[in-house]
Amino acid sequence: MQKPILPKGTRDFNSEELYKRNYIINTIKDNFSKFGFNPIETPSFERSETLLGKYGDDGERLIFKILKSGNYLKDVDDNDFQVSSLTSKIVDKALRYDLTVPFARYVVQNQNDITIPYKRYQIQKVWRADRPQKGRYREFIQCDADVIGSKSLMQELDFISLFESVFSDLKLDGCRIKINSRKILLAICELFNCKDKFSILTNQLDKLDKLDRNSVKENLLGGGFDSKTVTDIFNIIDLSSNFNQNLEELKSIFKSSNIGSEGLSDMEYIYSYFSKNNLSKSELIFDIGLARGIDYYTGLIFEVLPPDNISLGWNNSIAGGGRYDNLTEMFGLKNMSGVGISFGLDRLYLLLDELNLFPPASVNSVKLLLLNFGNNFSYDLIEITNLLRSNNINSEFYPDPISLKKQLNYANKNQIPYVLFYGEEEKEKKSFNLKDMSTGKQQIVNIEQLLKILRKK
Amino acid sequence: MQKPILPKGTRDFNSEELYKRNYIINTIKDNFSKFGFNPIETPSFERSETLLGKYGDDGERLIFKILKSGNYLKDVDDNDFQVSSLTSKIVDKALRYDLTVPFARYVVQNQNDITIPYKRYQIQKVWRADRPQKGRYREFIQCDADVIGSKSLMQELDFISLFESVFSDLKLDGCRIKINSRKILLAICELFNCKDKFSILTNQLDKLDKLDRNSVKENLLGGGFDSKTVTDIFNIIDLSSNFNQNLEELKSIFKSSNIGSEGLSDMEYIYSYFSKNNLSKSELIFDIGLARGIDYYTGLIFEVLPPDNISLGWNNSIAGGGRYDNLTEMFGLKNMSGVGISFGLDRLYLLLDELNLFPPASVNSVKLLLLNFGNNFSYDLIEITNLLRSNNINSEFYPDPISLKKQLNYANKNQIPYVLFYGEEEKEKKSFNLKDMSTGKQQIVNIEQLLKILRKK
Repeated sequence: MQKPILPKGTRDFNSEELYKRNYIINTIKDNFSKFGFNPIETPSFERSETLLGKYGDDGERLIFKILKSGNYLKDVDDNDFQVSSLTSKIVDKALRYDLTVPFARYVVQNQNDITIPYKRYQIQKVWRADRPQKGRYREFIQCDADVIGSKSLMQELDFISLFESVFSDLKLDGCRIKINSRKILLAICELFNCKDKFSILTNQLDKLDKLDRNSVKENLLGGGFDSKTVTDIFNIIDLSSNFNQNLEELKSIFKSSNIGSEGLSDMEYIYSYFSKNNLSKSELIFDIGLARGIDYYTGLIFEVLPPDNISLGWNNSIAGGGRYDNLTEMFGLKNMSGVGISFGLDRLYLLLDELNLFPPASVNSVKLLLLNFGNNFSYDLIEITNLLRSNNINSEFYPDPISLKKQLNYANKNQIPYVLFYGEEEKEKKSFNLKDMSTGKQQIVNIEQLLKILRKK
Repeated sequence: MQKPILPKGTRDFNSEELYKRNYIINTIKDNFSKFGFNPIETPSFERSETLLGKYGDDGERLIFKILKSGNYLKDVDDNDFQVSSLTSKIVDKALRYDLTVPFARYVVQNQNDITIPYKRYQIQKVWRADRPQKGRYREFIQCDADVIGSKSLMQELDFISLFESVFSDLKLDGCRIKINSRKILLAICELFNCKDKFSILTNQLDKLDKLDRNSVKENLLGGGFDSKTVTDIFNIIDLSSNFNQNLEELKSIFKSSNIGSEGLSDMEYIYSYFSKNNLSKSELIFDIGLARGIDYYTGLIFEVLPPDNISLGWNNSIAGGGRYDNLTEMFGLKNMSGVGISFGLDRLYLLLDELNLFPPASVNSVKLLLLNFGNNFSYDLIEITNLLRSNNINSEFYPDPISLKKQLNYANKNQIPYVLFYGEEEKEKKSFNLKDMSTGKQQIVNIEQLLKILRKK
């Protein structure tokens, strides 16, 4: 006998949880449509080579790999029996780690059928072998929208509007939309002669939310940065203040850096729009230390944190995104700058739950239970139930003629609002005895009256 | 540079395909609700031991196995380097093969929170390393409804009604709902003293749809049946005729078999209902050779084939199901007889496509494209677009001020019904030039008029 256990970091969802999850998903979906994004879906797993080399070392370790089918040792030599050389021989597929890389693969593969700029949304599961913790699971749904084929910064502005629109519909006030540019971080590396360690820097800065500053600094030292450079980098990050002041300070620091000036000009474009058009629900923050952990970003990057004034016991992002210039290039298609965002369903769920922002959940959609008074009535019960259903009334019969008490208990536990008595007397008179479970009131009705009452409810 | 290729047997879906798929899924979902089933979801992968030993040898080989994370060779000895002993050491999870076993695991794990009889539906992906062919993929969606905790045959009748209701809503006429009982097949084995090879028999009979009879017979000989037994078994299967005649013939054959009589009495219960209540869209067939390929079935089994009168080039089932008495027992919960059915989304899709039964698909939901006449207007475009969206009008701006021709081409390709001209003149006059792309008609409107026209559409 086996114990029924779930794999680490995964979850079952009951009807009530699904109702709440779908409330969030549908809100996001409606907004994606409103903003002109159309859905696509890609397979859960991709060929290994599609995913590998895209997420940095930290990401790559978290990818779930799928064993080849059949005799997977066929091509393995005696000296392959170590993880480093064995994996690529016995594995040819992996569960997707995010939706962006599969999207890039999709764009290249379907380049002749799509219209550029190409906008799509994708709401699907992704898998990461991360250490599970509150709001972080090994299987989770990402809700992504991306547009590819244009470098226009209008799109970044559009995504900020999209964040705001979704949070507004979810009645979620006070989210902090952080923004920065990878170009600014690259200019910092340029300034301190460590461009070769750019990926290490962004990966470590990305941990500032979760680790304390000293650990991040130590990791940077461990990653090959010298201690003066680390201090210098943090001196710049620590300048972070309001939009205008950041722009001023960085302008003087980057006065001879092309990439730095580009980054600042991008930020200025964003700032200039939002100094006229305030966000009503959220706060827009220019955070020089914002880095994002994924390697493919090249331009503006976003990350949304939950409202500051509530203590959730966690401070992880509920959404994020950014611009990537070279993602399709890996699959052979150049000059396809893209920008996209992703909502994290699970953290939005935690947040809405904590703040009591879910609309009341309906656990069961059944309106009527037909009680079972014996096998003499079973064919009739089925016929009546089907008649109700063909009139769009969700209904069911109790399958066994057990005690009335137990049957009523079933109706109560499942919050079914009406039960129907149909026994000897009712069969004879072609009538029904209908009981309203909330008031306890019973009435004798014919089929037309029954349909009328149930349709109203 | 990598070629963008999909893993074997998997697919991308564009917006139009998703629209059609969702039409089927929503039709099934609505019927599940109408029949009193509520949704749950389970993780994509389960612990290996949850899935293994449940599907028979043929099934088990098709399960996708996931490599342990990190150093997966940690517990491997030198003499483990063969598939038979290595797999269980380097693998601890597998992608689910169906939705029924995870459901049984769910029921046992949540037995204190659910009400018996427990009805749930589950529409999720499953994965099988099968050889891909028309209508068969390695990743596909199953649409399952199950009820567990009652032995009442009323439920089998209810599922046949459910088949009929779904096919009726899909405007799908003439499906053949085949029905048989595992008890009848077991009685046949009893009769010929081969109960120990019951699983081999059902697995092979299940292939009668795909292989020719002689191959199936040869497989049975290869599986240890002697040739007289094979002939005897096929003599009984070949009796298959109409319901009444099958019942007559089998009654005399099984007159001293308890299990055989049980199976016949079950079939009689079904027949007796449908001799009074005809199915209007489908045909109900008692097929003594129907076996179903999965080991866990113990009672009545169903399989639905597409209409006979259309030549699809394939004859695979579009739905199936049956009763299983002991599925939760493997996880430690006894006396929980269950019965369930499953719709195959991909085959229904093929069928509806072939028969032209899909409602017209809307490829794009965007109503209006705002044309881009230069960076001077970009902030205005964003503001106007957001105003339209806040009035529930799906709209987007073109992100770059490229040639008008190219922008109009984008609108045409994406089937956007309206475009808006907003340039120097319009900005000055605070007006808009709206073009109806189907008629070519243009008109100058103010914002109220614009909203009015677009809301109507």
